[in-house]
Amino acid sequence: MRRDGDDTGRMPPGPAPVHRPAGSASDEDRAARVALTWLAEPGNRTVWGLVHAAGAPATLDRLIRGDISDSALRDAVLARSAAGDPRRLADGALRRADRLGARLVVPDDAEWPVAVGDLSRMHLTIGGRVNQDTRPPLCIWVRGTRPLHEALGRSVAVVGARAATGYGTHATTEIAYGLAEREWTVVSGGAFGIDAAAHRAALAANGFTVAVLASGVDRPYPSGNAALLEQIAERGLLISEWPPGSEPLRHRFLIRNRVIAAATRGTVVVEAAARSGAVQTMSRVLALNRIAMVVPGPVTSAMSVGCHELLREHPQTRLVTGLSHVLEEVGRIGEHLTEPPRGPDHRRDGLDEESALVLEAVPRRGVADAEQLAAKAGLGLRVVLRRLSLLETTGLVERRDGGFALARAARTRRG
Amino acid sequence: MRRDGDDTGRMPPGPAPVHRPAGSASDEDRAARVALTWLAEPGNRTVWGLVHAAGAPATLDRLIRGDISDSALRDAVLARSAAGDPRRLADGALRRADRLGARLVVPDDAEWPVAVGDLSRMHLTIGGRVNQDTRPPLCIWVRGTRPLHEALGRSVAVVGARAATGYGTHATTEIAYGLAEREWTVVSGGAFGIDAAAHRAALAANGFTVAVLASGVDRPYPSGNAALLEQIAERGLLISEWPPGSEPLRHRFLIRNRVIAAATRGTVVVEAAARSGAVQTMSRVLALNRIAMVVPGPVTSAMSVGCHELLREHPQTRLVTGLSHVLEEVGRIGEHLTEPPRGPDHRRDGLDEESALVLEAVPRRGVADAEQLAAKAGLGLRVVLRRLSLLETTGLVERRDGGFALARAARTRRG
Repeated sequence: MRRDGDDTGRMPPGPAPVHRPAGSASDEDRAARVALTWLAEPGNRTVWGLVHAAGAPATLDRLIRGDISDSALRDAVLARSAAGDPRRLADGALRRADRLGARLVVPDDAEWPVAVGDLSRMHLTIGGRVNQDTRPPLCIWVRGTRPLHEALGRSVAVVGARAATGYGTHATTEIAYGLAEREWTVVSGGAFGIDAAAHRAALAANGFTVAVLASGVDRPYPSGNAALLEQIAERGLLISEWPPGSEPLRHRFLIRNRVIAAATRGTVVVEAAARSGAVQTMSRVLALNRIAMVVPGPVTSAMSVGCHELLREHPQTRLVTGLSHVLEEVGRIGEHLTEPPRGPDHRRDGLDEESALVLEAVPRRGVADAEQLAAKAGLGLRVVLRRLSLLETTGLVERRDGGFALARAARTRRG
Repeated sequence: MRRDGDDTGRMPPGPAPVHRPAGSASDEDRAARVALTWLAEPGNRTVWGLVHAAGAPATLDRLIRGDISDSALRDAVLARSAAGDPRRLADGALRRADRLGARLVVPDDAEWPVAVGDLSRMHLTIGGRVNQDTRPPLCIWVRGTRPLHEALGRSVAVVGARAATGYGTHATTEIAYGLAEREWTVVSGGAFGIDAAAHRAALAANGFTVAVLASGVDRPYPSGNAALLEQIAERGLLISEWPPGSEPLRHRFLIRNRVIAAATRGTVVVEAAARSGAVQTMSRVLALNRIAMVVPGPVTSAMSVGCHELLREHPQTRLVTGLSHVLEEVGRIGEHLTEPPRGPDHRRDGLDEESALVLEAVPRRGVADAEQLAAKAGLGLRVVLRRLSLLETTGLVERRDGGFALARAARTRRG
């Protein structure tokens, strides 16, 4: 392993490697990225900057030497180092992953999801302070066979409240099932409620789903979703920035959420309590210029309060009521077209004003002649006769008993 | 009555008259406005332009003489005149109104609601064609004692679907009751469903409500709401542009809707089917620069489809989930302030990132010392000690058994 602090430690991109190639990134680079993720939580701005400039092995050397000006990071590295040697821990994690059939994906691998690189440009302030944990991942652990970049290349996140209602579960299922059927990967966080409904619907559609975890890929969280997550590992992908064995600490969910936002074309929030994680995810989605979609709900439901707040406070957020709206937002222009919803009375709606006046003058029962209709409609006789023939053609009016009467289909309630 | 076509027929404004003064507008002006409303439906662009330029009596003379270039209007006037003498019909309507205790309000009256004058500036295109029936009313028939301008001066319209659901009725009641309690007049259209719920809630709050009808003020429509409309006539106001006895023809509802939009500070649509009347009302509200408010609902409800379409298609439309949002929109700045909704975990939410890391490092059961916490949190010992004292002060962490433990209140579910 390199021990110098120069900037030559980064591997050149090299020829495009195939899926999980041996040697596309050096083992040293892989192990250093794992060790760095263990020394400082993923997304750390300083660490990412150093790696970007000097490569992972050199950055690891510097951190271990304590040769860094960021005192908070230096203190954190010292505290973590006291618990064990980062290089040994990284080797242990890589061996553990091998045993459970997981793999480590790093930026030089062909299957690296390049979209997460947009995180390097994201500037997110929360409560007036720049959020420090929003840089791209250094590495991603993966369980499942499909190449990561392929699975995420055409993906939509569907996320929301753990305490989902039947309404939210229903809306989630409709959207996620439809997306999966149309070969969109459904990405979510593996949690109870909306997340689980999204994953389940995608699996039910024989589609593809990715769970982005805040714990190791061998640590199903919540344990109540263990069977579901195992299914996802078999038929989809389980991914995480944290090495196998990592605990799902609370702050990791927020760090994790930036990956869900960055890796997908758009995010749908189905239900969310006020000030919940889903609401924070959406601020990342917007900061990344991804498509932010929100399903409204009953104003009487606490689980829709966060959704309505998003729609009220962020004009860029799109209200979606179901699959067709989501497809419209994320699909290529012209690929998906939806019909505007129509009321039951198409033919009446399409009428010009004069025809509408004439139609309304026709009595609900019995017949009227053209002169009577002209007087009642307040239109000239010539106009009325012209409009009557149009209304006859449309099937709204018919001739009967020497006058004009409503056709059967036109006899709907007035007003 | 004047029979000449000159432009002197309009009354000069004169000194400000008191409520329903005799002679504030001439009887001739009143009768001419009634006759004109009978000859051509209210809102007619040509008629309003002529009245604006030459006064009502002179305009009536011209229409009766057929001295107008607008051929559609000329034909309509001819057709209507064939059914009776407009001046006699107007006199009959005024006598009929007298008998039932209704009054006619015209622009020169002190109680004329001047806000409807904004309709003269409204340009509304529907399907690419300029809507021709959007000019201000020529006169308004009123049942009820309170001066019209006073009742409408501080008013909000609450309208929506006739086929309202229990959800819509509930949301309407909450909003209308609260508005009425705070001395906002609740304006609606007297229809079944949302309209009726809005009127009823206002009456229940001992507040004030105005029903704007598309039929004569003596012709309760729908008849199922006759008792409610009678109550409104007694405790609020029933108003209409059409003379007593007029039928609620279908096209009149759309013409009526422009008055609801113009006379109020804002309109709340609670439930609306796709392409429904409420949706069309909102395009008028927006064209008039009034506040357009929409209550979202379950995406599974056909009665919320129109609401969601409004929110999707008109960015100026404001999503409101209840009374506080409506008050925020229509109230004067600073008069109504609402608290942003908050999740249950305020203290955690307010934490800086380091404190959050330390808090999460504290074991769920048992205690840990500062060094253990520093290692787990990935922070320096000094930082951890500083943050621990903050967390103690906040009541999230407590000292116990020589270490630090979660305070009782902080033991909530993770993630």
